[in-house]
Amino acid sequence: MEKRILGLDPGLAILGFGAITCTQSSTKVQHTTVNMLDFGIIRTSADAEMGQRLCTLFDDLHALIEELQPDLVAIEKLFFYRMSSTILVAQARGVLILVLGQRRLPYVEFTPAQIKQALTGYGNADKSEVQEAVARELDLDEIPKPDDAADALAVALTASYQM
Amino acid sequence: MEKRILGLDPGLAILGFGAITCTQSSTKVQHTTVNMLDFGIIRTSADAEMGQRLCTLFDDLHALIEELQPDLVAIEKLFFYRMSSTILVAQARGVLILVLGQRRLPYVEFTPAQIKQALTGYGNADKSEVQEAVARELDLDEIPKPDDAADALAVALTASYQM
Repeated sequence: MEKRILGLDPGLAILGFGAITCTQSSTKVQHTTVNMLDFGIIRTSADAEMGQRLCTLFDDLHALIEELQPDLVAIEKLFFYRMSSTILVAQARGVLILVLGQRRLPYVEFTPAQIKQALTGYGNADKSEVQEAVARELDLDEIPKPDDAADALAVALTASYQM
Repeated sequence: MEKRILGLDPGLAILGFGAITCTQSSTKVQHTTVNMLDFGIIRTSADAEMGQRLCTLFDDLHALIEELQPDLVAIEKLFFYRMSSTILVAQARGVLILVLGQRRLPYVEFTPAQIKQALTGYGNADKSEVQEAVARELDLDEIPKPDDAADALAVALTASYQM
């Protein structure tokens, strides 16, 4: 049985996405194979008004889901760094969760520590260790770029381990 | 010339709205008359999933704007009380600004202090003083209920004073 998981790294300027397929073997010893399906980013222009930037996220995310047809979405939980950024990210995240609601798509959330733990075995791993784990797990020759797309693949992989 | 201003007090569980008309006299001595048009709240159920709650806000706000046809929207700026609430309000606010973007409706934002200053003359006024000013300015017999609707009328009035 194959499932598609779409990982999202929410942001206003850059929304990272990474989609994987997750196949469960039908042999006696059950194991799961993961494969990279697609990754990339949705960008919104800092010159545009907030309303138009959120429209771009809304339209592009609907189009992306239409194209990739995921069974499950995995989102990185909001991490507090600076208050002003947190509000902008939370506003973008509201639009993203709206789109999932409109499509009645289930989603799961993981904290950065849970993602690090799932991919490297410890919650304090640094960014490059997580990215190397993503490339290794998905059998990629290079680390996916930009970082937002790699982060989105990491959250999708975290969801696949829980299935 | 008459303008319609829709004030919004953003929230996830309760979104307050208050609409006023703002008429500029055409006599030599220019003055502006404000009148109450409508007020109330949009509620989302705490039992529903986040995606469905944001769908309710999205659908109901589109319907409200369709009905009221405002020329300008005024929103209360996000005020930090508790971090977890701030994120929920910011997510709801993202959906709200998306709707304004989709309708290409201009909006202005005011901090709580700016609203208090505009309505009572000082930025540290308490809630009841602001609500009494709303009732007085709009010539209402009673203070509008619930508080979220009164707050939304207050932000609409603040915008009208700047026109």
